[in-house]
Amino acid sequence: MNLKPLGNRVVVEPIEEEDITAGGIVLPETAKEKPQKGNVISVGPGERNEKGDRILMDIKKGDVVLYAKYAGTEIKVSGKKLLILRESDVLAIVE
Amino acid sequence: MNLKPLGNRVVVEPIEEEDITAGGIVLPETAKEKPQKGNVISVGPGERNEKGDRILMDIKKGDVVLYAKYAGTEIKVSGKKLLILRESDVLAIVE
Amino acid sequence: MNLKPLGNRVVVEPIEEEDITAGGIVLPETAKEKPQKGNVISVGPGERNEKGDRILMDIKKGDVVLYAKYAGTEIKVSGKKLLILRESDVLAIVE
Amino acid sequence: MNLKPLGNRVVVEPIEEEDITAGGIVLPETAKEKPQKGNVISVGPGERNEKGDRILMDIKKGDVVLYAKYAGTEIKVSGKKLLILRESDVLAIVE
Amino acid sequence: MNLKPLGNRVVVEPIEEEDITAGGIVLPETAKEKPQKGNVISVGPGERNEKGDRILMDIKKGDVVLYAKYAGTEIKVSGKKLLILRESDVLAIVE
Amino acid sequence: MNLKPLGNRVVVEPIEEEDITAGGIVLPETAKEKPQKGNVISVGPGERNEKGDRILMDIKKGDVVLYAKYAGTEIKVSGKKLLILRESDVLAIVE
Amino acid sequence: MNLKPLGNRVVVEPIEEEDITAGGIVLPETAKEKPQKGNVISVGPGERNEKGDRILMDIKKGDVVLYAKYAGTEIKVSGKKLLILRESDVLAIVE
Repeated sequence: MNLKPLGNRVVVEPIEEEDITAGGIVLPETAKEKPQKGNVISVGPGERNEKGDRILMDIKKGDVVLYAKYAGTEIKVSGKKLLILRESDVLAIVE
Repeated sequence: MNLKPLGNRVVVEPIEEEDITAGGIVLPETAKEKPQKGNVISVGPGERNEKGDRILMDIKKGDVVLYAKYAGTEIKVSGKKLLILRESDVLAIVE
Repeated sequence: MNLKPLGNRVVVEPIEEEDITAGGIVLPETAKEKPQKGNVISVGPGERNEKGDRILMDIKKGDVVLYAKYAGTEIKVSGKKLLILRESDVLAIVE
Repeated sequence: MNLKPLGNRVVVEPIEEEDITAGGIVLPETAKEKPQKGNVISVGPGERNEKGDRILMDIKKGDVVLYAKYAGTEIKVSGKKLLILRESDVLAIVE
Repeated sequence: MNLKPLGNRVVVEPIEEEDITAGGIVLPETAKEKPQKGNVISVGPGERNEKGDRILMDIKKGDVVLYAKYAGTEIKVSGKKLLILRESDVLAIVE
Repeated sequence: MNLKPLGNRVVVEPIEEEDITAGGIVLPETAKEKPQKGNVISVGPGERNEKGDRILMDIKKGDVVLYAKYAGTEIKVSGKKLLILRESDVLAIVE
Repeated sequence: MNLKPLGNRVVVEPIEEEDITAGGIVLPETAKEKPQKGNVISVGPGERNEKGDRILMDIKKGDVVLYAKYAGTEIKVSGKKLLILRESDVLAIVE
């Protein structure tokens, strides 16, 4: 299943925290923090302005991005949790 | 009954989850997750901008789309549940 | 009493559900669902934009329209319940 | 006391419902429905747009108008209850 | 102390209701209604639009104006209660 | 420490009410009203409009201004309480 | 890990208050005030306007800035707490 986000949206695959802490303790699902970092796997064509022209996107496929904890909409695609975010909800690109 | 959505709206027929799980258990209605995927069966002519010109639609009839869980307005047409959404509430096209 | 709606408003006469179910049971008022379908009996001249020009209406008198359950303002005119809605609150035209 | 409403406002004198029902019962004040119909007794010059030009008014003095139940601001002028509404809160003109 | 309001603001001196009712009863402070009428004692230069130009004011010093009960900000200047309102919160000029 | 406010912001030093009432009673901190008057000690360069041009400021360093009770953000700079306000939250200049 | 903020965002490293008070008392974490001052370690390229052009940034890398107590989004990068803020949430530059 291939996703083509609309407008200024991007599809992000969250990067889960390590399951094992530095001290070797295995963290249960509920003790892990919600990830705020992810890989951009698909990028929309950009929002249209009032004249119908597209506004360019600053994010590209392959970028690693940071986003706010409860930004975007979670969807499940073939068992994988993905996040669809507006570019305006992406805080920064990690280099 | 044929529906002609107004502005940037689309009419979507939600794709229900399978009633039977992988293990063969029949799911009652209340245990099923609200669908977030649907078939676009009708597309509006696009929103008008300040000058009265239409802004082009990116979605077309026949597209399979993803949308947020509580987006849009549910209507019942000849016993079938349909969803009328604004294009801006559609997250992505599934290809 | 003739109503001339202002701006992008339309006057709609809701189409009530049948009082008798398929099984022949007479439904009391409180068991009926709020209608979401109605006949357009009057159409406004359209909203004015910043320059004072009218933005064209897509709905015309005689259209049958769908709208959200709690959209618009109910008014009683000579004992009949009517609904005054903005065109932007009308979801679709039924053909 | 003469009132000159500002911007796109109009001064309306609500038309009270009859005090006596069809069956001859005198209705106390609290049993009467809040009126939604009134006579326009004064009309503002219209809102200014970004350039400072006035946007024309569609309502004129003498019109009978319908408005939402809790729209506008009630004022008491020499013992009479008047309503000051923005034109955008007026639903329709009664003809 | 002279006040020069900023933007589209005006300084209003509320006109208090009479302390004595028609029947000769002296009203205590808490039984009096909050005034909605006042004398304009100072007028701002007008809001700037996007280009930086001023939008003209419709109210002038000396006008008697009506305003909504809880509009604006109350300030105390040398023991006198004044109200600073935006012109857009003034409902009408009394003539 | 010198503060350079951004956009249309100004830095204000609130003018505290007198600690001693007319009757000679010393007021404790909690009985004093929150000041609404202050000295402007620094002024920003003005907001940028859509084109990137600055919109001129009406307030200048040295002005005494009035503002709403809970406007702006309080900061502590070397033990002194200062207030950073947007020019649009300043009500009037005292002359 | 290098952060490239998007739009008009800046990455700020908060400047923590001293752990030891003037009287020599060591403050526990919970008794310290949330910092409102920080070093700008990275600056975005500026917001795009409707035409797609960038609006210039007033803040530059190395600036010390003041911001409201709960502005922006906290992120943890290699154990360090950073703050990503929009330039419009930065109150002033400290010189």
